[in-house]
Amino acid sequence: MAQATGTGHRIAPEHTHPDDVPVLAALAALADPVRMKLVRELSGSLGWTRSCGSFDVPVGKAALSHHFAVLRGTGLIEQRDVGPKRVNRLRREEFDARFPGLLALVLSPDPRDR
Amino acid sequence: MAQATGTGHRIAPEHTHPDDVPVLAALAALADPVRMKLVRELSGSLGWTRSCGSFDVPVGKAALSHHFAVLRGTGLIEQRDVGPKRVNRLRREEFDARFPGLLALVLSPDPRDR
Repeated sequence: MAQATGTGHRIAPEHTHPDDVPVLAALAALADPVRMKLVRELSGSLGWTRSCGSFDVPVGKAALSHHFAVLRGTGLIEQRDVGPKRVNRLRREEFDARFPGLLALVLSPDPRDR
Repeated sequence: MAQATGTGHRIAPEHTHPDDVPVLAALAALADPVRMKLVRELSGSLGWTRSCGSFDVPVGKAALSHHFAVLRGTGLIEQRDVGPKRVNRLRREEFDARFPGLLALVLSPDPRDR
């Protein structure tokens, strides 16, 4: 019951399809250590299983919300409200089709990562 | 004569090989409209034919110098002093080997570019 009520009080997130994203915006979205970590963690989870609060990143709630909005606005993730939780999936296929190889670069383990 | 003298007064630029560049730094270097334009213009010119002052970008001298330093520090360009001029080449092969497909994404014409 509480879950159903919770859903009604939130504005559904707006999405941008990767096809509508300029390459500059896609690069800028991924060129951030927190967003890169979110994308990497998300890639290791089944779609719609990770809520926004379940990621291990060293930022506050407002900053985290901003990072998710950037990922959504550049076609990297899709979000859905399930009761009080907002859950996520990586738009891997669509993003790969638009930017071949880019996600692979970000997701491959990099010994030079700091 | 003036050319030869000019060379002696400058500190040769330091370079970073693409193999030593983290993916985050490579993305950040390319996720900038001025640097993207420099890379695109450079890709259309023969190596060592373009001096730093020959690019059509809307920034001052200090900012331009910073942008070139970022490109050099992320293995995207190589620079050499020839008399009073600093000339450039895109390290396309080395960068491609380290980050397959990334330069191709940046260099392909993008109707969504603003």
